[in-house]
Amino acid sequence: MALFHVRMDVDIPRDLDEQVRTDTVAREKAYSQQLQREGTWVHIWRIVGQYSNISVFDVESADELHKILTALPLFPYMDIEVMPLTRHPSAL
Amino acid sequence: MALFHVRMDVDIPRDLDEQVRTDTVAREKAYSQQLQREGTWVHIWRIVGQYSNISVFDVESADELHKILTALPLFPYMDIEVMPLTRHPSAL
Amino acid sequence: MALFHVRMDVDIPRDLDEQVRTDTVAREKAYSQQLQREGTWVHIWRIVGQYSNISVFDVESADELHKILTALPLFPYMDIEVMPLTRHPSAL
Amino acid sequence: MALFHVRMDVDIPRDLDEQVRTDTVAREKAYSQQLQREGTWVHIWRIVGQYSNISVFDVESADELHKILTALPLFPYMDIEVMPLTRHPSAL
Amino acid sequence: MALFHVRMDVDIPRDLDEQVRTDTVAREKAYSQQLQREGTWVHIWRIVGQYSNISVFDVESADELHKILTALPLFPYMDIEVMPLTRHPSAL
Amino acid sequence: MALFHVRMDVDIPRDLDEQVRTDTVAREKAYSQQLQREGTWVHIWRIVGQYSNISVFDVESADELHKILTALPLFPYMDIEVMPLTRHPSAL
Amino acid sequence: MALFHVRMDVDIPRDLDEQVRTDTVAREKAYSQQLQREGTWVHIWRIVGQYSNISVFDVESADELHKILTALPLFPYMDIEVMPLTRHPSAL
Amino acid sequence: MALFHVRMDVDIPRDLDEQVRTDTVAREKAYSQQLQREGTWVHIWRIVGQYSNISVFDVESADELHKILTALPLFPYMDIEVMPLTRHPSAL
Amino acid sequence: MALFHVRMDVDIPRDLDEQVRTDTVAREKAYSQQLQREGTWVHIWRIVGQYSNISVFDVESADELHKILTALPLFPYMDIEVMPLTRHPSAL
Amino acid sequence: MALFHVRMDVDIPRDLDEQVRTDTVAREKAYSQQLQREGTWVHIWRIVGQYSNISVFDVESADELHKILTALPLFPYMDIEVMPLTRHPSAL
Repeated sequence: MALFHVRMDVDIPRDLDEQVRTDTVAREKAYSQQLQREGTWVHIWRIVGQYSNISVFDVESADELHKILTALPLFPYMDIEVMPLTRHPSAL
Repeated sequence: MALFHVRMDVDIPRDLDEQVRTDTVAREKAYSQQLQREGTWVHIWRIVGQYSNISVFDVESADELHKILTALPLFPYMDIEVMPLTRHPSAL
Repeated sequence: MALFHVRMDVDIPRDLDEQVRTDTVAREKAYSQQLQREGTWVHIWRIVGQYSNISVFDVESADELHKILTALPLFPYMDIEVMPLTRHPSAL
Repeated sequence: MALFHVRMDVDIPRDLDEQVRTDTVAREKAYSQQLQREGTWVHIWRIVGQYSNISVFDVESADELHKILTALPLFPYMDIEVMPLTRHPSAL
Repeated sequence: MALFHVRMDVDIPRDLDEQVRTDTVAREKAYSQQLQREGTWVHIWRIVGQYSNISVFDVESADELHKILTALPLFPYMDIEVMPLTRHPSAL
Repeated sequence: MALFHVRMDVDIPRDLDEQVRTDTVAREKAYSQQLQREGTWVHIWRIVGQYSNISVFDVESADELHKILTALPLFPYMDIEVMPLTRHPSAL
Repeated sequence: MALFHVRMDVDIPRDLDEQVRTDTVAREKAYSQQLQREGTWVHIWRIVGQYSNISVFDVESADELHKILTALPLFPYMDIEVMPLTRHPSAL
Repeated sequence: MALFHVRMDVDIPRDLDEQVRTDTVAREKAYSQQLQREGTWVHIWRIVGQYSNISVFDVESADELHKILTALPLFPYMDIEVMPLTRHPSAL
Repeated sequence: MALFHVRMDVDIPRDLDEQVRTDTVAREKAYSQQLQREGTWVHIWRIVGQYSNISVFDVESADELHKILTALPLFPYMDIEVMPLTRHPSAL
Repeated sequence: MALFHVRMDVDIPRDLDEQVRTDTVAREKAYSQQLQREGTWVHIWRIVGQYSNISVFDVESADELHKILTALPLFPYMDIEVMPLTRHPSAL
């Protein structure tokens, strides 16, 4: 499997239709929780004070990660940084 | 409890005595594994291609985190970035 | 308790309705002063020449800080940087 | 009076004589505590995970602040950023 | 007295009403010249090739400087950097 | 398989023993060419004017890539940036 | 021939007419595939998590590359970085 | 005479009236060519892949350069960096 | 004449011979004061908290400025930024 | 032919043997002037206040440029940025 550290900074335009915003955020939550249940989205934390998150994904490949990220409902309003992780020699 | 995302970039000077280097790295590993066993150092991953790690700490307070980080045997050779985390609304 | 250093840079869009702007700024002031009275928002200074402030918060946890910051009426128009603080060995 | 926000990042060279290091750090502490007692150095916090501090000075003038900072025993080993502060309109 | 180095980068939105622009720029000039006559705004130079200036202010305090800067008619369209200055040991 | 874009900036210390330098560079070349023959190191180009290269690796996983990179003879003298790649929708 | 490493970051404005967007993206794909068939656009990879690509062009000259890039249908919505490459001494 | 290295990055807003755009670009070309004929604008090159140029101006003074640059028809849509040059000791 | 804004950040190596340091700093002061008397070095201020200065030079040309700056006794230990200035339209 | 804009920032280590420094700088000058005579090194200017130059090279290819730059006697002490240029549509 492949482990990736992903930072997502969300910036939803102010003039986005209110209903579209609400639906998109709801779809984002459902989408994320589905992937969490599947064990793909293994960690998701909110960065204090920011509309941003740090996530860790456990996926088959970078290809799969790309599909997951670009299918995020909020993808069009995100800056995304991806960093591949590997096992640390001190990890238990 | 308090959750912190910590990035550590290690740059051990080339002219550090070889035995000191080996001992320090060994003490670092033991120190880290002890904290992992205690549930304080909850995640540690190596960033691919770098002598760096991403860690997540679950501590009583920022004060405790500071004590832990500054007591790292490799602390003098590290650049450290600390980011407080909180629960994400989508987290299961 | 947990101490956090927070920098807030405010950038209210020019085309925001004037009344909304005035109300929001007023609500921000009331909200801030309430938290100051409660001893949570312990310091707030204006950075000279900028629509920005440096604040120090004394909170139960980072979780509480996140709730406070994201509930700021001006939050949607802010860039926020959060840095955890701890007691300095020289502090009296 | 004049209020200044000062960030100090300390980087003491590894090859500094051990005794010189210990004396300098001790003199730095005494110097800081003297200024704290005089009400000049009003706040000093350690940034978690860093050999750095955030301080706030209440001085007669920027000239006085410069004398204070350049007289810091650790000054030769510091990166210093100074930001003038002023009263925030929301401050109680 | 207190001496401050201030860089102002001006970026007036293209869609600002032409008459508002002209009046604002005129008020800015009058305001600046008034402060120059009073000896507060001691230097103002244009940075070649930029809609920016380098200024030096001689004021009672940072508080006064903040009032002056935030009262600039063009303030809403400016990025401002403030640096406190002090007497140089080589200055005649 | 997993595709990674890797930039390597090499900065060999001037005071490295000349023979060590020559051997290390030779071992680096042999190591690289072996991986190229195996089809792992699929591309390596020199960036004009720099002691740097852009490489593309086709590996089993990020774990494997990390092993490869940290085993580079010149690794101690390198700044390395790793970016996961995936198939472009326009690629033939 | 001349080899160039090109990074393209695409940011299509939200308010671009949907049909224009679709046509432009289609023309971009056709244009790219034509150049790939001609052997000019030798590599194109998607950067994981980003609407960006890393490409390598093999062209007669920088002049030709400029014509190719500025004729990209998506050129108006791109940030482009160009780096000349040359043969690496370790390349097989 | 005074020699200046100037980088100009052009970013014409998408919603600029098409005729205004065409006229402005035409006036820019005529203006530039006139200054080239006068020997003031001594070099102008396009940066490959960018709507940017590197220019070298040979002018009486920085004052003259400022007048020239701020009179550029495209000036409102430009980021400009100016660097003073002088004769290189190796120049023939 | 030509007006230039120059920022000088001084970083004298710790291991510079003490006598050389003292002589160099003294020569720097004498050199600067001579140019101040000649009206070339029109302003020199210390940046609070830094071993840096902001200076303004009034010289015949950039060529002359280059000779002046590179002849500074502390030049080898300086980072220097030069910005050409011109008369501001609001300047009295 | 291919035109390249090259910025070279020189930082010769203080502890380089004086004679080596003098010879290297002399060889650099001779090398540069030879290439200028051949019409390859078409422009070289000193950036005011810096031990840096802006150069323009007219070469067969980027490969040739790389050979030229890496053969510079001062190459080991340089930071080099290379930018491909092409003909500007306004150029006479």
